Amino acid sequence: MPHDPAVYKARAERLHKLAEAEHLLILNEINIRYLTGFTGGDGALLVGPDWMALLVDGRYITQAGIETTNLEIREFKNRTDGISSVFQEKGARLVGFEPSAVSYGEYIRLRDSLPQASLQPLSSRFEFLRAVKDDQEVGEIREAIRVAEKALTDLMSLIKPGVTETELAIELEYRMRRGGAGKLSFDTIVATGPDAALPHATPGRRRVAAGDFVMIDYGAVVNGYHSDETRTFCVGSPSEKQREAYQLVLGAHDRAIGAIRAGVSCGEIDGIARSFLEEKGMGRYFSHGTGHGVGLEIHESPRLSAGKSDILEAGMVVTIEPGVYFPGEWGIRIEDMVLVGKDGCEVLTVPGAGLVEL
Amino acid sequence: MPHDPAVYKARAERLHKLAEAEHLLILNEINIRYLTGFTGGDGALLVGPDWMALLVDGRYITQAGIETTNLEIREFKNRTDGISSVFQEKGARLVGFEPSAVSYGEYIRLRDSLPQASLQPLSSRFEFLRAVKDDQEVGEIREAIRVAEKALTDLMSLIKPGVTETELAIELEYRMRRGGAGKLSFDTIVATGPDAALPHATPGRRRVAAGDFVMIDYGAVVNGYHSDETRTFCVGSPSEKQREAYQLVLGAHDRAIGAIRAGVSCGEIDGIARSFLEEKGMGRYFSHGTGHGVGLEIHESPRLSAGKSDILEAGMVVTIEPGVYFPGEWGIRIEDMVLVGKDGCEVLTVPGAGLVEL
Repeated sequence: MPHDPAVYKARAERLHKLAEAEHLLILNEINIRYLTGFTGGDGALLVGPDWMALLVDGRYITQAGIETTNLEIREFKNRTDGISSVFQEKGARLVGFEPSAVSYGEYIRLRDSLPQASLQPLSSRFEFLRAVKDDQEVGEIREAIRVAEKALTDLMSLIKPGVTETELAIELEYRMRRGGAGKLSFDTIVATGPDAALPHATPGRRRVAAGDFVMIDYGAVVNGYHSDETRTFCVGSPSEKQREAYQLVLGAHDRAIGAIRAGVSCGEIDGIARSFLEEKGMGRYFSHGTGHGVGLEIHESPRLSAGKSDILEAGMVVTIEPGVYFPGEWGIRIEDMVLVGKDGCEVLTVPGAGLVEL
Repeated sequence: MPHDPAVYKARAERLHKLAEAEHLLILNEINIRYLTGFTGGDGALLVGPDWMALLVDGRYITQAGIETTNLEIREFKNRTDGISSVFQEKGARLVGFEPSAVSYGEYIRLRDSLPQASLQPLSSRFEFLRAVKDDQEVGEIREAIRVAEKALTDLMSLIKPGVTETELAIELEYRMRRGGAGKLSFDTIVATGPDAALPHATPGRRRVAAGDFVMIDYGAVVNGYHSDETRTFCVGSPSEKQREAYQLVLGAHDRAIGAIRAGVSCGEIDGIARSFLEEKGMGRYFSHGTGHGVGLEIHESPRLSAGKSDILEAGMVVTIEPGVYFPGEWGIRIEDMVLVGKDGCEVLTVPGAGLVEL
C-alpha cells in the first residue's frame, strides 16, 4: 500500500461523497486498509467531518503506528466499548455503517452502546467505494497478474498424464509465492476430467489422463491486490464435442469482452455472454455469473450478473469468465481480467485463450 | 469429512438441543459443513423439526449431491428468495438464526421476505455447537498437527543468518502442502528480530541475523481441521534478558496448561498465565488473550480471555499461547494445542517448548 498521504486524502474525499452521514463507522477490514493503509485485523475506523480514528487491539498498536499517517490511533480492550466512547466524545448523533460488514449481533451491541446516536445503514452505492481503480492500483493488479502468469507458464511442463490435481495446485502455488505473491488470491482450483464439471472443485488425488480437460483457476496477491484467471487446457486431442463446446465458451467470452466500455450496464454484459450460449443450446450449462470486480478483494463490486443495472465506469477492473459444465463428463471455463475504458477495455491478462493442447 | 449418516444424526440432535426455535436458518459455512458435510460456499441450511434442506447456487448443485446424504438439496437463484420460499412452504412461524453469521443487511432482507415468520437470534451458547470434538475430529486435528510439525522439522536447517522471513514462510508452507495439508490454517507468520515485536506480523524481506528471536506461528488444515502452533527460536545465543523473558513466557504457558481440566472457567486459565507475567513485571507486554478453541475454524469457541466465564468441557481443543512483545526489540510467543480431559489435559502438539538455540 502507498504511504502517500495524498492518496489517502483523495480516498477520504470519495468516502465523504459516498456517505450519507456526517459520522461513519467502517468495520470492513478491506475498506479500512484502503482508507488508511492499515493491514492488520479486527480494527475499526471512525470518521468524522474532519477527523479519523483507527481503533485496534493491543496486538496491532505498533503495526498501526508504522502503517498509517494523519489519523488518531487508539487501543481498545472491547471493540464495541471503544467505538462507543470515541463517538460519544465527538458528539456524534448519526452514524453511517456498512450493512454487509456488520453482523446482526454486532449491530445490536453497537445500538445498545450508542444510545445518544442513531445508526444508519449506508446504501448499496457505498459498496462501489473501491470499484474505480487509480493508476497505482492498476499497476499492482498488473504485477499480480504477471506473477501468476509466470508461475503458470513454469507449471505447464508438469501438466501431463499421471500427475495429480493436488500436485499441480501445490506446485503452482509455490511458484506464485516464490515469484512474489504475498499470498494466493484463493485456494487454487485444479480440476481435471469429470472434476472440472464442478465449477468450484477442490483439487484432489485424481490423476490427469489423456483427453482430459484441465481447468486451472488461480491468482496471486501483490501488495493486497488480486489477480484472477482461469485457463482450461486439453491433455492430448479434444473430442469433437469438447472442441465445439470450447469454441462456444470462447465465443461468449470474446463477445462479452468486445462489448465492455464505460456506460454499459453489468447486466448487459452478462446478457451478451448468456444469450450467445443460450442460442447455441448451452445456456443451462452456464450456471454462474459472467464476472465480478477484482482489487483488494477477490470478489468485489461490480457484479456482472443477470439483471444487474450497475453501470461500468472507466477504471473498473473486472473478470469475464463464462463456463459450461457437464456433470460426470467435463467442464470448461475461460476467465480474463479487463480494465474498463471510455471506448472499450484493455485485457490485462495475457491474451491467448484459444484451446491449448498439451 | 465423514460421510457417515450416524455422525450427522448426532450433530443434528445436538443442534436441536442448542436451538431455541423449531425452525433454524444456518448461514455460517463452517456450521453447514459440520452439520451436512457440504464443503462449498454460499449455501444456506434450513432446519425443521424433522427435515433439513440445503440451498445452493448452480455452481454447487453437483458437489452438494456428492457430499451430503439425508437432506433435500435445492437450487436458488437468489438466496434470500430461496430461503423465504422454503420456510413459507414449511409453514415456519419462528426461525432461529446465527446473529454473528448474518450481516445486518442480510437480516433486513430476510425479515422483509419472511413476513409470516419472526426471526430470532440464537443465544451465544449456540456458538458452542462445535466446541466439543468427537474422536474422529480429534484424529483429524492430530493429523493436521503431525503434517505441520513434520514440515517445521524439515525447515529447521534453513533457519540461519541470511535467509529472509518470506523465504522461510514459503518453504514452510510448501512443506505443509506437500505433506498433506489441504490448505494452510492462516497466512504463516515468520517474524524475526524487531518484527517479532508485532504479534501478527506479515513476513517480509528482513534477513535473519545472529542473536535474533525467530517467531513462527503456523498451521496446516487436514480435512477441514486446523492446527495452530507457535515456536520462538533463537539464532545463536540469547542475551540474558532474552533468556529470562523466554523462561517467564514458558512459565506462564506451563502454569496455564497445568490448570486445564473440565470444569475450570476460560477466564481462570487466562488469569493464571496473565497474573504470573504480571507478578514478574511483564503483564503490559502480554497484549492478547491466552488461547482459543480450534477445529473447523482456526479461532472458535471457547475463548480463553480475561473474564470469560465459559466452562471448559472434556473434548474441547484449545490453544495456550502467552507471549510478550517489546516494540523495536523482539518478541516471544509459545503456543501449543491441548485436548481438555476430565482431570487434566493432553498436549496434542509435540512437547518441547524449551528455548532452542539454532
